[in-house]
Amino acid sequence: MAGSAAALAGMGLGAARDAVAQAAPPAAPAAARPLPAYVAWKDPAALIQHSGTTIETRRSAFGTSPITPVDRLYIRNNLPAPDASIVADRDAWTVAIEGVKSPRSFSLAELKGLGVETVAMVLQCSGNGRGYFPSKPSGTPWTVGAAGCVLWSGVPLRSVAAALGGVAEGMRFVTGTGGEKLPEGVDPKSVIVERSVPLSVMGDALLAWEMNGAPIPLAHGGPLRLVVPGYTGVNSVKYIKRLAFTAQESDARIMSHGYRISPPGGKGDPSQPSVQEMAVKSWINSPSGEGAALKAGPVQITGVAFGGVHAVFAVEVSVDGGSSWLPARFVGPDLGRYAWRNFAVEARLAPGTHKLVSRATDSTGQVQPKDRQENAGGYNNNSWADHALTVVVA
Amino acid sequence: MAGSAAALAGMGLGAARDAVAQAAPPAAPAAARPLPAYVAWKDPAALIQHSGTTIETRRSAFGTSPITPVDRLYIRNNLPAPDASIVADRDAWTVAIEGVKSPRSFSLAELKGLGVETVAMVLQCSGNGRGYFPSKPSGTPWTVGAAGCVLWSGVPLRSVAAALGGVAEGMRFVTGTGGEKLPEGVDPKSVIVERSVPLSVMGDALLAWEMNGAPIPLAHGGPLRLVVPGYTGVNSVKYIKRLAFTAQESDARIMSHGYRISPPGGKGDPSQPSVQEMAVKSWINSPSGEGAALKAGPVQITGVAFGGVHAVFAVEVSVDGGSSWLPARFVGPDLGRYAWRNFAVEARLAPGTHKLVSRATDSTGQVQPKDRQENAGGYNNNSWADHALTVVVA
Repeated sequence: MAGSAAALAGMGLGAARDAVAQAAPPAAPAAARPLPAYVAWKDPAALIQHSGTTIETRRSAFGTSPITPVDRLYIRNNLPAPDASIVADRDAWTVAIEGVKSPRSFSLAELKGLGVETVAMVLQCSGNGRGYFPSKPSGTPWTVGAAGCVLWSGVPLRSVAAALGGVAEGMRFVTGTGGEKLPEGVDPKSVIVERSVPLSVMGDALLAWEMNGAPIPLAHGGPLRLVVPGYTGVNSVKYIKRLAFTAQESDARIMSHGYRISPPGGKGDPSQPSVQEMAVKSWINSPSGEGAALKAGPVQITGVAFGGVHAVFAVEVSVDGGSSWLPARFVGPDLGRYAWRNFAVEARLAPGTHKLVSRATDSTGQVQPKDRQENAGGYNNNSWADHALTVVVA
Repeated sequence: MAGSAAALAGMGLGAARDAVAQAAPPAAPAAARPLPAYVAWKDPAALIQHSGTTIETRRSAFGTSPITPVDRLYIRNNLPAPDASIVADRDAWTVAIEGVKSPRSFSLAELKGLGVETVAMVLQCSGNGRGYFPSKPSGTPWTVGAAGCVLWSGVPLRSVAAALGGVAEGMRFVTGTGGEKLPEGVDPKSVIVERSVPLSVMGDALLAWEMNGAPIPLAHGGPLRLVVPGYTGVNSVKYIKRLAFTAQESDARIMSHGYRISPPGGKGDPSQPSVQEMAVKSWINSPSGEGAALKAGPVQITGVAFGGVHAVFAVEVSVDGGSSWLPARFVGPDLGRYAWRNFAVEARLAPGTHKLVSRATDSTGQVQPKDRQENAGGYNNNSWADHALTVVVA
């Protein structure tokens, strides 16, 4: 097994598709190094490894479909994934439901009887785009690839609550607790992944067991994950073992002090805004600016755009760094307001250097801003100027 | 490489996700045997192997997302896939465009400049459901799994034709020719994969280079595949090397005599209807009827439904073999008229044996029939009675 694990780790699915067919040694892409064992089934050529638990999708690896393949999707885990034994019998996983009229635990098998819904949703790390902050905040310097659009299937929280008599009086938050094994010798509250979101997410949030048509891989929170559409990734708690409707936000450190919009140079505290709803954002994926110069001729400029909790309404593209703008058209099916949409615009670029940017507008009229909102954590970067890319046409 | 290829072949992606994480030998599912090398990256536990070129998805492996993961998607190739060298430099693949005002060849890189669209489409083998014909027609005895719903990205045929001055006068068909290597010593027309479809498909057909957000794997027709939404799979020609607008249908045997609706016991000939547009169809995937008896309690009955070239409009479910019907609800986003929709209905099944069936209606009012249309080839089976499944509740 060590041999095959190593082979997988060095190859990944995408390369394997071609390499196995060729029955020849895989040519590892120059920049790819082996992925950690728990994500060895991902495609290293499509990914940038920052660390064993922080891996992003290359800009050039996003296609023009609204759904991101799981083997190209980013990884960001606050704690190491639990032991794989938890996915050996997925239906046996249990989650405690609290803050309802009749609290109880459900096995995953039981949850599946309560209802099923499928939601397409942008999953984006709170710090996606942090790499563009000149202040170099601590944390992973993500560029565009700590994001993807995923189909989640599971039972709506509203169906779970309804099956237990409804949410108890006075509850204002949905608090999810992850099932990661905590390091010993430290205050559990200082490390546990426990997040609270407003009760208003109840309309569309799920307890999900499936992503993109297959059981959720362990690396992405399987067997059961809380999914909060329109919110940054940290709020969609993996390996959820407790779902509580609560009167107060969790006092876990990741909630009280982590993921806060703090002034530059400052530290997080509970008085500051929590990183929750995503804002309108877009970026260009192709041409990617990677590799050789483009040939002159018609080029399709493509990218993705989303509005967080609102649908994206329109996208404009500039090939001169934002001096002038062209309307882009949407490409492919609309998967609902939490999904991203692919966009395209055709251009003919003269030989030379061009600065490409995109700017999205959501259904409420909010326009993606030119400038980032400075903050100590490097969160929520939706600046269109920061996401510019430079291409050379020969 | 032989070692890692063998390891991959014995494991597949799905098992690899868990097994690699566990760093323990993968437990091969009882019914799974190693997949051929060119599809060794697929998940053998999700698949039924009929032969090296005919592999279907298990009924129990369809999830509740509208898109089928590529590693669970069926395989049916009329000829062995070409050498993998054709995907070593995808952009260098060329396709000849004929039957336009200004015929020429395009490289894939050039095609990408002409336009881009993404279409979600049911890909279904013409013989899906053949296994339910009591007459046992020759050909693979597919049950439900020679089908999936796929996102394809590529350039619309209409954009290709427009770039070359438009379709030439008098052309009535779109004829695609596959790039497979033909066996020697036989008349090429007797084996070449060349299919013609009416010019009316121009509205939505693509020359596609991407499926489900990544380059099309060799096994599924990459680097370039003709995609004809609403038509059975054989019409979406793999490794397309020639796209011709023609006055007549191809005289290749696969068109003139193959894939025809012939009377039982008869042989195909050009006077008979060609297998092209798909008809309204649905089936239940969960409960699958596989494995142990269900426990009594609420159960979500889920499945898929599609209308071929028309959108699916409604689905009914029966738990008594078709004596009485319940309306099902659609689950998840609507990806357009060529996609399938997931449906669900909640039921409480008493202990005993139940015969579950589903019946779809398309947007033109066509209702999925109870009975199959008998034909020698076992094509186009959309009988709801044939697709029934039996479940036992303890």
